[in-house]
Amino acid sequence: MAQNVYDQPAFFDAYSGMRRSNQGLDGASEWPAMRALLPDLQGLSVLDLGCGYGWFSRWAREHGAARVLGLEVSELMLDRARTTTSDPAISYETADLETIELPPGGFDLVHSSLAFHYVEDAARLFAQIRRGLVGGGHLVFSTEHPIYMAPSEPGWRLDGDRKTWPLDGYLLEGPRTTDWLGARVVKHHRTIGTTLNLLIAAGFTLEHVEEFGPSPDQIAARPELADERQRPMFLIVRARA
Amino acid sequence: MAQNVYDQPAFFDAYSGMRRSNQGLDGASEWPAMRALLPDLQGLSVLDLGCGYGWFSRWAREHGAARVLGLEVSELMLDRARTTTSDPAISYETADLETIELPPGGFDLVHSSLAFHYVEDAARLFAQIRRGLVGGGHLVFSTEHPIYMAPSEPGWRLDGDRKTWPLDGYLLEGPRTTDWLGARVVKHHRTIGTTLNLLIAAGFTLEHVEEFGPSPDQIAARPELADERQRPMFLIVRARA
Repeated sequence: MAQNVYDQPAFFDAYSGMRRSNQGLDGASEWPAMRALLPDLQGLSVLDLGCGYGWFSRWAREHGAARVLGLEVSELMLDRARTTTSDPAISYETADLETIELPPGGFDLVHSSLAFHYVEDAARLFAQIRRGLVGGGHLVFSTEHPIYMAPSEPGWRLDGDRKTWPLDGYLLEGPRTTDWLGARVVKHHRTIGTTLNLLIAAGFTLEHVEEFGPSPDQIAARPELADERQRPMFLIVRARA
Repeated sequence: MAQNVYDQPAFFDAYSGMRRSNQGLDGASEWPAMRALLPDLQGLSVLDLGCGYGWFSRWAREHGAARVLGLEVSELMLDRARTTTSDPAISYETADLETIELPPGGFDLVHSSLAFHYVEDAARLFAQIRRGLVGGGHLVFSTEHPIYMAPSEPGWRLDGDRKTWPLDGYLLEGPRTTDWLGARVVKHHRTIGTTLNLLIAAGFTLEHVEEFGPSPDQIAARPELADERQRPMFLIVRARA
């Protein structure tokens, strides 16, 4: 099954303390870039893959979605998500993105934030998402950027004034094990090319590809983000079914 | 105008000594990957942007193209290209990719090898190429990979056993000046996302995106290529008009 470190209590507590957990969508620096790629949600049936605490699921309902299904592998996160809403048009269910089966044409929009890098078989996942979307529906997702994920020892290096991100292993696809918030986390490194070609092979038309780093305005507000312009943190894609 | 270091005699002599100059298409490690993306050339009208010595233009004719136009900014390269063929269906002309104007719908295939990174205004270039292609025609091109181009000091670093490519400036798009074969060369760094979004905006459908490094077979034949798996050298794209 896909990585589920989120059900380890110590990890869950640490994750719960992050900006993106406490402050919701506005605590995630990439959210404005994701939001800009979303279609008008009015009346749409929305699927949120790896919904976490349900921040996006609730936001989608507040912005006109007719119904939202949030799927998540972590029971601790689902428990918390369920406590945050009594809206009958939002439902939360347990699902593993590695083995998910979606009914044909049930959704107008599939959203996913920072979950796909835990999935080993992206070809299968994209085929299921394409099947689950109506023709003309959209997939909008973020994932860790492969430049961020590839290195055998991910981290910054200072060379005099120059801060660099020593890259290796970029073309060596496969699992990457790192320590994050005190847990061993396994992610699956794919190049941008592989991700995009798998989407095309699944029947998607690519509409936008963004290698995300904080904007100048975001850096002005939080100067500690400036280094993030040296290498992208996230890959954000919009594709049409 | 676009970078034209190729008309500096000392640079031209040094470039002429490279594998890809002496051995033609088979001297370029990325050629098998490019070739695999080409459509059947039988009867096609082909445009080769930055045709250099004309290796691809001649290959296209040998593989069935009805006619080939090779455009190149370097007069020294054009002079050499013209000496290599007397085929009346191949023509070579001077053109600057920064200011090129293509007649509408004149070509079935546009090919370009390692020329677009010299072009500052890629939006203009892609719009011209889209205009020059028939509907359903293809653009297949290679360019230096932005990971290769971005760093302020591009080059390998050895950390114990680990060979890394210290990356910086990836999200800082714009000119990059490097020394290559004894000349100062100016290239224009764009992220993969920017390149793909400009293609989409110009009306192209993306069909394949490849971040090229040598294959295991190529490394077995030339072990000195092994490091090139640590970071991609080239970006290769096929798009449909």
